[in-house]
Amino acid sequence: MYKVDLNCDIGEGYGTYKICADESKLMDHITSVNIACGFHAGDPNTMLGTVKLAKDKGLSIGAHPGLPDLIGFGRRNMSVTEMEVYNMVLYQIGALYAFVKAQGVELAHVKPHGALYNMAVKDIKIARGIAQAVYDFNPKLFLYGSFNGELIKAGNKLGLKTINEVFADRTYQQDGSLTPRSEANSMITNENQSFEQVLKMIKKSEVTAVDGQLIKIKADTVCIHGDGENALSVLQNLNKQLRLNKINIEPLRA
Amino acid sequence: MYKVDLNCDIGEGYGTYKICADESKLMDHITSVNIACGFHAGDPNTMLGTVKLAKDKGLSIGAHPGLPDLIGFGRRNMSVTEMEVYNMVLYQIGALYAFVKAQGVELAHVKPHGALYNMAVKDIKIARGIAQAVYDFNPKLFLYGSFNGELIKAGNKLGLKTINEVFADRTYQQDGSLTPRSEANSMITNENQSFEQVLKMIKKSEVTAVDGQLIKIKADTVCIHGDGENALSVLQNLNKQLRLNKINIEPLRA
Amino acid sequence: MYKVDLNCDIGEGYGTYKICADESKLMDHITSVNIACGFHAGDPNTMLGTVKLAKDKGLSIGAHPGLPDLIGFGRRNMSVTEMEVYNMVLYQIGALYAFVKAQGVELAHVKPHGALYNMAVKDIKIARGIAQAVYDFNPKLFLYGSFNGELIKAGNKLGLKTINEVFADRTYQQDGSLTPRSEANSMITNENQSFEQVLKMIKKSEVTAVDGQLIKIKADTVCIHGDGENALSVLQNLNKQLRLNKINIEPLRA
Amino acid sequence: MYKVDLNCDIGEGYGTYKICADESKLMDHITSVNIACGFHAGDPNTMLGTVKLAKDKGLSIGAHPGLPDLIGFGRRNMSVTEMEVYNMVLYQIGALYAFVKAQGVELAHVKPHGALYNMAVKDIKIARGIAQAVYDFNPKLFLYGSFNGELIKAGNKLGLKTINEVFADRTYQQDGSLTPRSEANSMITNENQSFEQVLKMIKKSEVTAVDGQLIKIKADTVCIHGDGENALSVLQNLNKQLRLNKINIEPLRA
Repeated sequence: MYKVDLNCDIGEGYGTYKICADESKLMDHITSVNIACGFHAGDPNTMLGTVKLAKDKGLSIGAHPGLPDLIGFGRRNMSVTEMEVYNMVLYQIGALYAFVKAQGVELAHVKPHGALYNMAVKDIKIARGIAQAVYDFNPKLFLYGSFNGELIKAGNKLGLKTINEVFADRTYQQDGSLTPRSEANSMITNENQSFEQVLKMIKKSEVTAVDGQLIKIKADTVCIHGDGENALSVLQNLNKQLRLNKINIEPLRA
Repeated sequence: MYKVDLNCDIGEGYGTYKICADESKLMDHITSVNIACGFHAGDPNTMLGTVKLAKDKGLSIGAHPGLPDLIGFGRRNMSVTEMEVYNMVLYQIGALYAFVKAQGVELAHVKPHGALYNMAVKDIKIARGIAQAVYDFNPKLFLYGSFNGELIKAGNKLGLKTINEVFADRTYQQDGSLTPRSEANSMITNENQSFEQVLKMIKKSEVTAVDGQLIKIKADTVCIHGDGENALSVLQNLNKQLRLNKINIEPLRA
Repeated sequence: MYKVDLNCDIGEGYGTYKICADESKLMDHITSVNIACGFHAGDPNTMLGTVKLAKDKGLSIGAHPGLPDLIGFGRRNMSVTEMEVYNMVLYQIGALYAFVKAQGVELAHVKPHGALYNMAVKDIKIARGIAQAVYDFNPKLFLYGSFNGELIKAGNKLGLKTINEVFADRTYQQDGSLTPRSEANSMITNENQSFEQVLKMIKKSEVTAVDGQLIKIKADTVCIHGDGENALSVLQNLNKQLRLNKINIEPLRA
Repeated sequence: MYKVDLNCDIGEGYGTYKICADESKLMDHITSVNIACGFHAGDPNTMLGTVKLAKDKGLSIGAHPGLPDLIGFGRRNMSVTEMEVYNMVLYQIGALYAFVKAQGVELAHVKPHGALYNMAVKDIKIARGIAQAVYDFNPKLFLYGSFNGELIKAGNKLGLKTINEVFADRTYQQDGSLTPRSEANSMITNENQSFEQVLKMIKKSEVTAVDGQLIKIKADTVCIHGDGENALSVLQNLNKQLRLNKINIEPLRA
């Protein structure tokens, strides 16, 4: 009946640097990966290794383009124009595509990273730059974005297949946006509470906002953060609970 | 009867930096361009502009991947492994491909830049890394390399269509390799002498080496340097003289 | 009686890229230079050449630190913390200091570049990060900033010798800030009008804002843009006119 | 009677990336640190943290400049000129100096990193570029280099205080150089054997080369690699054994 995609940001090392020791294990419990493309993380050597791993696991592969800010890991907002966003996203999609192509698999989706993702929720110009780059590269690609944000709207306007992403470990505000990390109640640290939120989002298309109100939400894919200390156990538990509740965990299909 | 491709390295600015004021004019006199892909030169914004310009001029478009060395403009040798070369070339081909794809035109060839090009003449591992990346991305791409070097051999071994490149303004040694720039007689500065060399290479498949001996050579494409002071007039003259000598200037075709 | 410092941003090339052909000539008509330190422009090789040139001309030398954004030439705002600003400014001051020290001359001042400069006019945290870095490196350094902005205030609070900078080719708003470049009347293109503004700022400590009102201003140094097409002639003219009006052009002294 | 300095390369993270979880603990067992300066590793934020930590531990602080190759961690040889080496080393020394100065401590030495270190053992031009940069910044700085290599010679020629560095976990060849990592017997994995080698180098100024011959060596400082799996226990053991053998572990003094 119900189904959901579980995605994880992956391949976020750089050169000799690794960000996650257990990528291979994490990948056993998800259905799609977003692979860093060299700007906020992910040099060419890392990209090849990550694409090969995703191929071996049979995962749906997406590009995860970020701002050109390695020191800040792409998490610092920059005042970039729509055209600059278009170009940096197009460049990174192409770079990742090359590895996917060389490995004989498919590029399935694009999900912007960090500050680029967050800016695209609110800023229509950033959203349009991203969506247009995806469309111009391949209009059949899925575009992942935060539920109800400008990026989803910009993608829809172009006729892209847009994928509403929700978060298991973050709380929501009344307008459907995430509670900023700067606020005390932004994170859900209790595993059960986190799972209950996901379950309600999938089955009832609802989430309880921080002010107690029920709001509408759509959960096509759930983002799992792979860099937490107990990321693997959280993921294993979520995976198990979803299956127990008869929710199919499967990648998105055209 | 006779024909030849004229190619030029282009799009080698970065951000606010421009390397060549007259790129648009130069492009009126050539048939193929090699566009920088972000490592030795060419940021995403520059790449879009360059691809658009090449499309407007109807030129055959190639990727021009280089070493990750912006300060050294990709001209300093680095001890990179075959796998590192494979990955950096694949990455850069994909990045340029994205702009070409978005503009609705074709990617026709790959020509490595600077130190990567020169190392691939002599070093079979570097040559194999490049050739394999081109092949894995698209086996129908042309691979440009210095006449008779290891890159051409590595490309032939994989079944790639290899393109022997010669130089109008450089002298040759008895073994068919270019005289190193460190030697006094490496450059041909006289325009007529330069043209005579090109003419003989195309019509007779021969060139006179610095020691006076005639050697065999194959000239599928002639590289024109766009950054010389009088690059435009040199190019106009070469173009005119070739036509007067009934040599068709045309891009390579599959 | 009256005196003023004329400063110019210099050494803003990178690797093989040059931004200004006439740096040496420009430097004959100014008294202090702000030298790029490698983040928005200025690689180590360029820095050595620029410091040597400034030494030969006997100019007062300053560090010109920018945001880590070579593609955007340091002109795109980034959401950086006070601590990140402190560290990036400290790093760049030290890097330039090494060349100044090796050449046996003095580092006299620090002037932030581009978006970092502009953010420091309004944002007290950015201003504090810069001022503290200057102070911690050497409390005797001059700190250049836009008249009356947060950077000047932050510097004063620490006891730094702050230098109010004005612009010859920009108009002012009623609050003493520059008219944003996005507005039609932001630039002064008429040379005489530009000179009259400078003269009034130096002699009367006043400037006529765009709404016609006279406002107070302090002109310790005038910034000359070296990248305009006729930068050299503008500078020569300004220099000549100031001398005719008995205003000494001289560097700032401790 | 006997004494030795124990040094460790430190601060080799970048942005969000960390290379060593136990830096603080490692630093309890050594006397000097070499801190990465931003080219092969070590962004400004990391540099501040590392300098503070070294200050807290009372360690002797050195700059650890590398090649501009973050992807390759500065371990890939590059064909750089003497002048390029001079400039990149000078730049990095200055950058680190700024943090040391701001923290009110001293910069004591310079030790080149990775490929730059190795090239300077054999290549007199690279060696001269490094030594001259150190000298021009501050002729009182110690220069660390591999025993008997070109770097030590170049430093001595300039009158720098040169420090012969030996390695606890590497074997030596008959000419006093390290056995290349590509050879099977290059590493010493047995802790006792490693300690015996160090003891003999310090007390007898000798080491047994891989061919069994005794050769002369001078051990002013021993390099400890901090990135091995059991780096901390190796270091603790070496430290303890040296003390048991009445060898003082102390930093170098002017």
